[in-house]
Amino acid sequence: MNLILINPDELDAAGRARLSDERAKHIQKVLRAAPGKTLRIGRLNGPLGIGTVEEILDDSVTLACEFEAETPPRPSMDLLLAMPRPKVLKRLWAQFAALGVGRIFITNAEKVERYYFDTHILNPDFYNARFIEGLQQARDTRLPEVTIVKSLKPFLENEPFPTLGKKVLADPSGTQNISQALESNCVASPRILLGIGPEGGWVPYELEMFKAHGFEAFGMGPRILRTDTACIALLGMILEIQRRDS
Amino acid sequence: MNLILINPDELDAAGRARLSDERAKHIQKVLRAAPGKTLRIGRLNGPLGIGTVEEILDDSVTLACEFEAETPPRPSMDLLLAMPRPKVLKRLWAQFAALGVGRIFITNAEKVERYYFDTHILNPDFYNARFIEGLQQARDTRLPEVTIVKSLKPFLENEPFPTLGKKVLADPSGTQNISQALESNCVASPRILLGIGPEGGWVPYELEMFKAHGFEAFGMGPRILRTDTACIALLGMILEIQRRDS
Repeated sequence: MNLILINPDELDAAGRARLSDERAKHIQKVLRAAPGKTLRIGRLNGPLGIGTVEEILDDSVTLACEFEAETPPRPSMDLLLAMPRPKVLKRLWAQFAALGVGRIFITNAEKVERYYFDTHILNPDFYNARFIEGLQQARDTRLPEVTIVKSLKPFLENEPFPTLGKKVLADPSGTQNISQALESNCVASPRILLGIGPEGGWVPYELEMFKAHGFEAFGMGPRILRTDTACIALLGMILEIQRRDS
Repeated sequence: MNLILINPDELDAAGRARLSDERAKHIQKVLRAAPGKTLRIGRLNGPLGIGTVEEILDDSVTLACEFEAETPPRPSMDLLLAMPRPKVLKRLWAQFAALGVGRIFITNAEKVERYYFDTHILNPDFYNARFIEGLQQARDTRLPEVTIVKSLKPFLENEPFPTLGKKVLADPSGTQNISQALESNCVASPRILLGIGPEGGWVPYELEMFKAHGFEAFGMGPRILRTDTACIALLGMILEIQRRDS
């Protein structure tokens, strides 16, 4: 926990927050903070700041919170991911938040088992808790937004696709690499939407649909990566490309 | 399992291999292969090839193996990693092999707990099994080489460091990004050695030592990533840089 995230509704009118969960334990047991100690804090979906420990009781810690004026920028990176096996996605949520993914679209696909969607890890309570864990690790404040897409076609046709920036799709059929795919994408936008298919790949019909909606396919070479490895490695590549071009 | 890896000592003089472990189960239960079916195979640390199912018994599968003449190239990427918590490293082994890391140096550091080294996951039998899992996923054949470094200083002074190519070190003190660090490294080599510190970071003395031995420090921006996320994201960045420059 490299940052204590405070929910706006935990703040009283004087900017004080009384914490009594894992954060309080962390402040007492790991940080061993005494009254007067200042800690890095953030307001959920808002700016970073400094919290001064005011009071420590057995079961709570009260912080006096001061926040900066501006919310920090984050990478302009979104993810469209065919629903992986739940136990794989479970471990990815915190990492997506830590890497700074803005919007996450979890989609159905021909090669996704239908029962994958019957899982508690798609409940907002579940993934938001994991996101907060990732944000507190990475010192970020903004919760990724999640959309569950059970039907791909109407989603691609109706959703805010035109505003989602450059769209690239990891697929073995791609003959260019990710940099080339971004360059050959004619959309002028700093945002990048990365599409990653199911373990069995997209079927030809799905690939055609993605191409028709502006996705450029790219290959990762001969290696076939597990979904979790591919997600993190590809998001790493995009972070590198965005830093290089900024 | 996208490739069946065969150990050279499993091959008889006629190029036949009789498998009776997980691979045999996979061929029977997942691939549902019948005699005559051809499968993608690889010889451990050698070339890819094709295996033709000759015989299927309850507890074994016999393949007639033919290998290509050349062993495929792999990314020229090595990793120096301060020993993470064992349960973190346990999950990383297979991913390192899948991403094509050549050599892995697991090192001590001031902020590494000594007891981290007392773990079965540093036994070659343990990590080689995980590597084979990663290679069979990614369709590669070459086992990463692992060196456990309990004392950093003599290692940096005596080991084959001059031959290890461009050296970069992920550290919050780095003001350049990874591309810049690689460019400002004057070693002319396609190999890249990526250094990643412990969760608490390197101490100043260690940082000085790395710099004195040719490492260029680079920063990843304000985010602090978990070791596992950082490893995969940074290896992804290096793969992207190497593909772009090749």
